[in-house]
Formats: sequence, C-alpha cells, structure tokens
Amino acid sequence: MEQRDLSRIVAFTDGVMAVAITLLVLNLEVPRVPASELDDALVDLFPSLVTYLLAFALVGRFWIIHHRMFEALREFDARLMTLNLGFLALIVLMPFATELYDRYTDEPLACAVFGTIMGLAALLNWAMATHTLRRDYVHESHREARQVGSLIAIGVTLAFLLSVPVAFVSTTAAALLWLSTLVLRYPLGRFGATAR
Amino acid sequence: MEQRDLSRIVAFTDGVMAVAITLLVLNLEVPRVPASELDDALVDLFPSLVTYLLAFALVGRFWIIHHRMFEALREFDARLMTLNLGFLALIVLMPFATELYDRYTDEPLACAVFGTIMGLAALLNWAMATHTLRRDYVHESHREARQVGSLIAIGVTLAFLLSVPVAFVSTTAAALLWLSTLVLRYPLGRFGATAR
Amino acid sequence: MEQRDLSRIVAFTDGVMAVAITLLVLNLEVPRVPASELDDALVDLFPSLVTYLLAFALVGRFWIIHHRMFEALREFDARLMTLNLGFLALIVLMPFATELYDRYTDEPLACAVFGTIMGLAALLNWAMATHTLRRDYVHESHREARQVGSLIAIGVTLAFLLSVPVAFVSTTAAALLWLSTLVLRYPLGRFGATAR
Amino acid sequence: MEQRDLSRIVAFTDGVMAVAITLLVLNLEVPRVPASELDDALVDLFPSLVTYLLAFALVGRFWIIHHRMFEALREFDARLMTLNLGFLALIVLMPFATELYDRYTDEPLACAVFGTIMGLAALLNWAMATHTLRRDYVHESHREARQVGSLIAIGVTLAFLLSVPVAFVSTTAAALLWLSTLVLRYPLGRFGATAR
Repeated sequence: MEQRDLSRIVAFTDGVMAVAITLLVLNLEVPRVPASELDDALVDLFPSLVTYLLAFALVGRFWIIHHRMFEALREFDARLMTLNLGFLALIVLMPFATELYDRYTDEPLACAVFGTIMGLAALLNWAMATHTLRRDYVHESHREARQVGSLIAIGVTLAFLLSVPVAFVSTTAAALLWLSTLVLRYPLGRFGATAR
Repeated sequence: MEQRDLSRIVAFTDGVMAVAITLLVLNLEVPRVPASELDDALVDLFPSLVTYLLAFALVGRFWIIHHRMFEALREFDARLMTLNLGFLALIVLMPFATELYDRYTDEPLACAVFGTIMGLAALLNWAMATHTLRRDYVHESHREARQVGSLIAIGVTLAFLLSVPVAFVSTTAAALLWLSTLVLRYPLGRFGATAR
Repeated sequence: MEQRDLSRIVAFTDGVMAVAITLLVLNLEVPRVPASELDDALVDLFPSLVTYLLAFALVGRFWIIHHRMFEALREFDARLMTLNLGFLALIVLMPFATELYDRYTDEPLACAVFGTIMGLAALLNWAMATHTLRRDYVHESHREARQVGSLIAIGVTLAFLLSVPVAFVSTTAAALLWLSTLVLRYPLGRFGATAR
Repeated sequence: MEQRDLSRIVAFTDGVMAVAITLLVLNLEVPRVPASELDDALVDLFPSLVTYLLAFALVGRFWIIHHRMFEALREFDARLMTLNLGFLALIVLMPFATELYDRYTDEPLACAVFGTIMGLAALLNWAMATHTLRRDYVHESHREARQVGSLIAIGVTLAFLLSVPVAFVSTTAAALLWLSTLVLRYPLGRFGATAR
C-alpha cells in the first residue's frame, strides 16, 4: 500500500516537472517580421535559446537529483509531502524566472530572482534529503550514497544563494555559478555506479 | 484488473492536477518595462506571487486530500468516475479563478467566483468520500480514518462556501477563510501517523 | 513485458488527454475591464463557461470510453498504436475547436468543425474497438461488453457526424446531438456493473 | 528497484512528450474576424492544420521509436539519462519549430531550423540506441531487433540532417524528406511482429 502511495507522489512530481520544463519553451517567441529579416530575427533569438537550454538543464538536473533521492526511500510522511509541494511550487516558477532572466539578462535584479528561486528549490531539496535520513526512511543499501547526496545538495544550495549577491557585482559571474551546479559531475557519476 | 483501472484513474487525475497547478504560474506576467523600472515592476508583482502561492497551496492540498481518499479504495464505480471528472473540471478552472482574483483582488465578485469554484470542488470531494464509504469501497484498515476525512471534507466545503457571502462584507475575511482550510492541520497529522 | 508496454501507451494517452482537457480552460479569458464593469463582464463569460463544461464533459467521456476499451486488452500491435495516435491528434485539436465554437457559437461552420473533429475521433475510437476485437486482443471475460461498446462507438460517431450537416440547419440542434452522446447512459451503467 | 527507476525515466519522458505534442496545437490560432469572413479565415488556416498534423506525426513517431528502445532495456546509467534529457530538450523545441515553419513555410531558413532540431533529436536517439547496445543493457530477446532499430535511427537522422541543405534548394523537397521518415514503414511492421 505505502509503495503505491510513494509512487503516486513521484508520479505527480514527474507530471508537474514535465509540464514546467516544457513551458520553458514559451520564452522563445516566434518572430513576426518580414521574411527578408528572418535571418536577423533568428540570430537575435540565439541568446534566448541558450537561456532555454540552461534552464532546461537546471530543471533536468533537479529532476535527476529528485529521482535519486526518492528511489532510495521506503517510507514517507506528511512533512515530506509538504516539503515536496514547496519544492514543486518553486520549480513551477521556473518558466517565469527564465523569461524574466531572458528579457533582462544584464539586470542584477533579474539574475537575483532566478538565483533565489533556484536556491530555495535546492534548499527544500536539501531539507527533504536530511529529513528522510533523520527519520530513517532511506533503504539501508542507499544510506551512504544519500549522505553524500545530502552534502551535494548543500553545495548546490550555496552556489545558487551565493549567486544572488554576486549578481549585483557581475551577472556573468552569477550565471557561471549556476553552470557550476551542472558540472559538479560527481553525483551523476555515482548514480551511474549504483545503477549499473 | 480492477487495480490497474483504479491506478489509471489516479494517473489521469494526477496528470490533470499537475497541468492545472503548473498553469497557475501563467498569472505571473514578466514585466515589459525599461530596465531602470524593473525594481518597481517586480515589487508590483509581489501580490501576484502571493496569490500564486496561495492557489498552489490550495490545489496542492486538494491533491493530498484526493491522494488520501484514493489510497484507501479497493474498488470504484461509474458514479465515482463521474464525480471525479466533475471535481477535475473545477480544478482546471483554478488558473482562471486565480488570475481573476489576482486582477480584481478587492472585488467581492472575483472573491466569490474563487470561493464558489473551490467550494464546489470540496463539495464533490465530500460526495466522493461519502459515496465510497456508503458503497463499502474502502479498505477495512482505512475506514475510521476515512470517516474522519469525510468530516474534514465537510469543514473545507463549508469554509469555502461561507467565503462567498463573506466576500461581500470583507474580501480579506474571505481570503482568511480560504487560508483556514490549509491550517486545519489535523488531517495532515493523521496522514503522517498512518504513513509512518 | 508486453504488459508494461501496454501501460506505457495508456500512460502517454492519459498524459496527452490530461493536457488537452486542461487547455480547454484557455478559452476562458479573464476580463480586463474597470472594476465597476466586472459583473457585466462575468455575465458575458457565462456562455464560455457552459462551452468549457460541455467540451470537458465530451473529452472526459472519450477518456472513459478509451479507459474501458484498453482495460479489456491483453495485447496490441503497431496498427493500434497508429490509430491511437490519430485519435490523440484529434483530441489535441479540441482546445482549438472549443475556442472556435465559443467565439462563433451561432455560425454553422464553427459547429461543423467541432462536430467533424469529434466525429473523426469517435470514428477512430470505433476503428480501434473493431480492430482489437477482430484480432482477438480482448480478454475473454470482456468480449461481450466490448462488442456492445463497439456498437455504442458507432452510435457516438454517427451522432457527431450527423451534427455536421445539421449545424447548417440549426446550430442548437447540432449541440443537442453532441449532448446526446453524454446521456447515452447505457455504457456507463454497464461499466459500473462490471467494475462492481 | 532498478525496474522502478527505469519506469520513472519513461514516465517523465512520456510526460514531457505528451505536453510538447499537445502544445503543437497552439500554432493554430482561432480567427478573430467578422462572422461573414469565417469561411475564408478557416480556409486560410488549412495549411497550418496540415503543418500541425505533420508535426504531430513526427513527434508521435519519435515517441514510438523511444517506446521501442526503452521496452528492450533491462538497465540504464547516468549517460543514458543525460542523452535522454538532451533528446527531450529538442522535442520541447518542436512547438516553437512548428510555429516558425508554419509562419515561414517557404523560407529555407525556417525549414532548416525545423530540420536541424529534428535531426539532432534523431541523432541523440541513435546515440542512445548504440550506447545501450554497446553497454549490453538490452534484453537478449530484443538485441537483433534493436540492432535493426539502430540502423533505422541512422536513416532518420540522415534524412533530417540532409533536409537542412536541401531546404535552401527547395523547401518542398525538404518537407518530403521529413515525410519519408514516416513512411519508412519497416520498423513499425517489425514492431507489430514482435508485439503480436
């Protein structure tokens, strides 16, 4: 019985994240220009495409992290559901944050909003990780990997939250901090190791 | 066989609710102002953000309630499917109701529309709860918890329906009534108790 | 193995139908009028709300019919997948057809488009029903019910296709034909009987 | 445990593809013309409808190919997840590419964008196919079929990538190349053979 419930939470989470990640594309607006100016208009769209790919990669990474955390669970409780809903509320804000950042890429404030939303999502992620470890909801065989995962969650959280003040110094530096959470290859490597 | 069918209803419900909850974000429009006015524009967006979070929390709470009800079922019938579709038709109206309420927060009429839609959704929820109890579709081990759940469903329904006339006296009081359905912590507490 | 594949087709279908049914709400546009005119604007929205509910009920009914057909299957083939994709391509057109019908409710042409899309969807539904019966993909215990279901699929198809010419005589009569497919209570009754 | 994880990747993929395929309809805009001009406006929409159906068929075909590949897997690793996310990032671009192509059907550049996105998606598809074969993640009974599938993936990739330069000679020829990936009936036929 509990197993089915757990998979329903996972299914709902997957649904919300699938919709949110797909809505990211809405920031790419098809140009309405004369055909002769289409090439320039498409070149102008290129930064938006890069922003889309960055946001897709970040949400995709959050999905992988979530996937790894929940595959290790054997139980859950009401607090985990509430934390998970909070996490989803922030993920759903991503299409908004992405469009805002895309439109005001050089504005520290837009960067700060993006960094704050991602940072809070990572924080709730970390809260879920520690909560499930403390309550002993994690399968024995996954405990060690999950403790490492919890450390990584702190790293991701710090990188995003740090990007908020950094944005007011350099928006490029802030974006590099976001990228750094993707190249923290370590967890992905481990995942491969356990899955194989 | 029936088990698979039940999970397909649940999957469809999860899908619809996942899309509806994600569309709530569409009420947050990215400002189109000169960069120098971005700070003011974002401050102006703050009430919309709060409205988004409120609506997300309410739909999320409905999802948890639905989750608890269906995890206890061992059977279902055509009437339950019809009631569930009616419930979903109201949940899908939430992005509309949220945007309406966000744009006309101080108008009693907008509050009343929001309260009516949520109230009818809660009513159908209660109808599903009593229907499944009366037809004896609930697992023995969950009967008691579900009877309490049915009472809570009445409470939530009354709070929302009461908010409709209250909105014409004070829109703030109506919004507080909606919030009260979230802090009715009792069912969440119980959920934790059974899940643990 | 086949069982998992079958459930993946079902999951994809549920996903597409869940998104399509939720997008129906986009035809309801939140008014942008002075607060003092909100009451009139909401009254003006009432027909759109009715159209939304009608379209939701029709797509919901198609979902129930699809659910009943696929719960009876033990196998499938490439043709069924192609027919199912064709069926989904028509369901996805429903938000468009609904908005068109909502904007031009009294225009025979808009009615005819709506009726054609639903009629073709019902036709593909019927094609799936007969294909699975002919290829003997239906569980023994469901054969009889599915043969009745196939007859009903013809009825629904005819009602929608008939509504196309009828629309040019009376758009109201066409809409009543659509409604008639909902009150064909028989299949729902049977469903309850088998599920119980 | 691994089985559940694999099905979660599949569920997330299905979710993203279901949303993306449904958003294709957004390129069909309901006309806003006087009722007397509705017939002309609908005739003008006909090419957009054809484009929608083409894009739906292409994404649907990608879904079938993905379905066939993943049904044969018994394991996966981090690289497959990354490749799959890259594949999804391209699929999510399809509503944008479709609307662009629909608005600038005769422009080589719009064709080239469409062909590039589909070609890269097919390339990642092929990369997933060879990766899973090389790492021996494929069930014995499916190996042969999957090796054929890998060849077909190359064919589809080449057809789409070839359409990019071809578009600058003839946009019609490019569109025919896309269509050719649909009438490569062979894989569908095999699928039927194994499923039966």
